[in-house]
Parts: sequence; C-alpha cells; structure tokens
Amino acid sequence: MTLAEYLACQQRRVDAALQHWVPAESTPPKSIHKAMRYSLFAGGKRIRPVLCIAAAEAVSDSTDGIESAACTLELIHTYSLIHDDLPALDNDDLRRGLPTCHKVFGDAMAILAGDALLTLAFQVLAQMECVPDRKTALIAELAVAAGTVGGMIGGQVDDIEGEGKHPDASLLYAIHHAKTGALLKASLRVGGIYAGSDDEQLQALSKYGEHVGLAFQIVDDVLDVEQPSEALGKTAGKDAQQKKITFPAVYGMERSREMAEEERIAAHKALRPFGQRAERLRQLADYVVQRKA
Amino acid sequence: MTLAEYLACQQRRVDAALQHWVPAESTPPKSIHKAMRYSLFAGGKRIRPVLCIAAAEAVSDSTDGIESAACTLELIHTYSLIHDDLPALDNDDLRRGLPTCHKVFGDAMAILAGDALLTLAFQVLAQMECVPDRKTALIAELAVAAGTVGGMIGGQVDDIEGEGKHPDASLLYAIHHAKTGALLKASLRVGGIYAGSDDEQLQALSKYGEHVGLAFQIVDDVLDVEQPSEALGKTAGKDAQQKKITFPAVYGMERSREMAEEERIAAHKALRPFGQRAERLRQLADYVVQRKA
Repeated sequence: MTLAEYLACQQRRVDAALQHWVPAESTPPKSIHKAMRYSLFAGGKRIRPVLCIAAAEAVSDSTDGIESAACTLELIHTYSLIHDDLPALDNDDLRRGLPTCHKVFGDAMAILAGDALLTLAFQVLAQMECVPDRKTALIAELAVAAGTVGGMIGGQVDDIEGEGKHPDASLLYAIHHAKTGALLKASLRVGGIYAGSDDEQLQALSKYGEHVGLAFQIVDDVLDVEQPSEALGKTAGKDAQQKKITFPAVYGMERSREMAEEERIAAHKALRPFGQRAERLRQLADYVVQRKA
Repeated sequence: MTLAEYLACQQRRVDAALQHWVPAESTPPKSIHKAMRYSLFAGGKRIRPVLCIAAAEAVSDSTDGIESAACTLELIHTYSLIHDDLPALDNDDLRRGLPTCHKVFGDAMAILAGDALLTLAFQVLAQMECVPDRKTALIAELAVAAGTVGGMIGGQVDDIEGEGKHPDASLLYAIHHAKTGALLKASLRVGGIYAGSDDEQLQALSKYGEHVGLAFQIVDDVLDVEQPSEALGKTAGKDAQQKKITFPAVYGMERSREMAEEERIAAHKALRPFGQRAERLRQLADYVVQRKA
C-alpha cells in the first residue's frame, strides 16, 4: 500500500469512528450536532489520528478499536480550531476551505459546539472498548496535553499574549511546544499506550512526536507565508498580520526550511528501536515536511 | 453537627481539593490560572460537590478522597457559568457578587478559562486515587451529563433557542432537565458510584437527584423574580428581560412555590431505602428549597 492509499484508508477508518460517536444531525438539539459535524467533516487531513494509529501499529499487531481512541484527537483538535477562530480570539473567517463555525452558526453556537467536542472526546475514551487502567492513562494523557500547564490551552494563552512582542527564539519554542506540540506528541503516545507499549517504546514515540510536531509547526508557519489562502483552506498571511511569533519571523524562510528538514531526520532517528515496524511513521514524517497545505 | 456546620466543613474540604488540583496563580501561564481561580473562588455555595459527598456518605462509611471527585462537579459548573455569561451567550456582568470572568479578563481569556476548567475536571477524575473501572464509570457519567444529548450543553442550546418562544410546560421541563438537572443528578450519582453503591442505591440517588434538581431550578427561577441583585450575587430579573422560559412564566409564582415544596417531599421519599444514613441528604433537600439566594 502506498502512503497515499494508507492515508486514505486510515482517514476513512477515523471518519467512520467519528460518524459512530458524534450524534446525528437529526438528534435533538439538532442545531449543535449540525455545528459540530460541520466543523468535524470539513475535510481535515486527520494527521493526529493517523499518527496515533501508525504508532499503535509500530507497537502491536492487534490494534482493533484504535480508531475510537484516535478520533478523540480529532475531536480535541477541531474544538480548539473552532474556539481559536472566534472573533474574541484569532477572528478567522476561513478554515479547511469553508467559512468558520461561528460564521455559519453564530458565536454562541460555536462556543457551545467547541465545548461539546471537548466533552465528547472524554466520553468516547471512557466508553470505548479498552481495559480500564489503560483508559484512565489515555484520559490523563489527553487532558494534560490539552490543558494549561505545558498543554494546548497554555500555548494558546502564550500565543495571544505574545502577539506584537519581539520575535524571540525561547518564546517561540515555548509557544509551539505547548500550542501544537503537546497534542501532536500525545497523538503518538495515545497510540502507544493503547497498544500496550513498554517504557522504551513510549519514550521513542514521544521523541518522534516532539520532532514531527516541531517539523509540522515550522512547515505550517512557512506555508502561511508562501501559499495562497485557496491552497491552505484558511486565511494566508494571518501570522504576519497579527504579528505572531513564528519560525520565519525568528529565523527567516530559508533557515526555517532547513530546520524542518533537520527535525524530519531527527524523527527518523528516534524510530530506530522499532526497525521495520515504524516504516509508516517514517513516511508520515516525510509527508508532514513535504506537504503543500 | 448542624447543617450549617456540615455545609461549612464540606465546603472547606471541597475548596482544599480545588486548591490542590487547580494550578497556582504563580504557575505559567499565570493569566489563565488567575482567571480560573477568580471564578472558582468567587464564593460559590458548592451545592453540587456537597450533594456528591452526602450521597457517598449515605452509601458507605469510607469516603476518603471523595473530595477530588466532588470538586470536578464545581469545575464543570464554573466552566458553564463562565461560558454562559459571555456576551455571545447570556451577556451577564455580575456573578457570585463579582464582575463576571470576561468583564475582568476579557472574552478570549474567559473562553479559554472555561475550556481549561472543563479539561481539568477530566484530568482530576483520571488522576485521583480510585479503582480504574470506577474512574471510567465516573468519567462517562460526567461527560454525558455535561454533553449535548440530554446534558448540560444540550439544555443550554434549548434555552437560547427557546428565548422569546411561548412559555410552554413541555419545553420548560426539557430545558431544565438537561440544563441544570443533568449535572445535579450526576452529582448524586458520582458520589454513589465512588462509594460503591449497588443498583438499588444508585436508582434511589438518581430519583432524589431528579427531584432536588427540579426543586433547585424552580427556586432559582422564583428567586430571580423576587430577590434583588445584591442578594443573588447575579443580575436579578434577567429571565423576564431575556424572555426565558421559566417556572414562574409558565405556572405563576404561587404555583411555582408549591411545586418546589412537592419536589422537596418527593426527594425525601426517594431516600427511604437509606433510612437514617440519608439524613444529610434530607436536610440538603430542605436547604435547597428554603434558601434565599
């Protein structure tokens, strides 16, 4: 199976899990389920769930049911996009090539839809098929990664408060590490924990997750500068406009591209303990760096 | 111990648990921890956590550590107040006698502080001391009660969409049942599950929770009409102003007061299987109906 085929196959698997767990548009109150589904099924690449599944496959041959755990990463990611796009935060009108959730459903419904996706992520983890002590480990992992101390919300706070500040490397890493890095790393760890990884494997997945997460963010920042909105599916050039602290702002475009490549190589290295079993994860690191949107 | 002493004692216990689990104001990013703590420690009555603890005590003599589970109900309740008070939702300036979270910290920080309290609730449940299968039952319980299908967010949606509609009894019950009823009932069930209740006990606690929840909401609606803002600690008369569907709007004040009393009696009845062990829960039902704020 080529990587493109693998991606398409896993995306379908993740979407099927989302279809299963997210209430239908016909379930009352219909309006919020419509808003949740609008943002969830707006054509996301499902990078976090696919990384989660590939991590589980690197650890074990039996990964049945992993798609439920994997889809919670997309629930959390989508909630964060909906809230970040609100007028009170980044005030963005375009996401995944479509008008943002609050543009279509209003601010109140967008706030509640985000809350609901976050809540649902924990419901899925608590209700899916999995041994209880592994479940609670997964819930703690995800809650910390999405939280305020070194997690996604904390990074979002630093990001907002960093706007207009002097672009400084240590602040840049702190923001990235928390805002996108924590959930990306957790994607790998969730897959590993679900599949029963030992300490050494979980360490390797964490290391890989850190490097892939960094590569992902650098490439995201570079694409925001060089690609038009149509290609990105979101408003291009927003970072510079909002005076965000980004990799191109601190290091320039050329050095940023080199750094993404360095992180890709470091990600490959981190996978050595897995040998051939981690081939998909290697391809995914390449994909993250080479993508154009 | 009088009920007043019991309430004060349990409130201290719950506050100590919140102090333990919520990051200090000095933990970066400081601003969000300040915002979270501002709303959490604004003098809430901790009714949900106290009901949770009293339920556990009705079931078992060993309720050590219940304060961690109990405090997650306050985390969820406070997150919902912060988001409900936002300009995009109920647009309220006063809560628990103080300016609302977004009035002090801005809309962006209030949105993120609410998100963070919700996330933290699940982190606490996953990390507290408790057997894993009971933990996952508690997490599922709380996620469903806070969610969209018959849960708190669903009730909030119905409430917003009901504004200005004809005050109709079936819509009123549907809104209440989900918006405040689900989390109140869950407060009792969380206590029961934590303490290892059997099916009959959990059924009785659920029944009691439904009646106390309904009594609580009726009294809340009545107080909104008859008490001044200073007594309530929140803007009085908002329901009528926003054309909310309330018990006084549907049944009038006198019949609403009678209904609260009927629910109090039904709550007492539901506790029969517990005999003397449920004395505190009986007193709490009385307290909920007789309170003046």
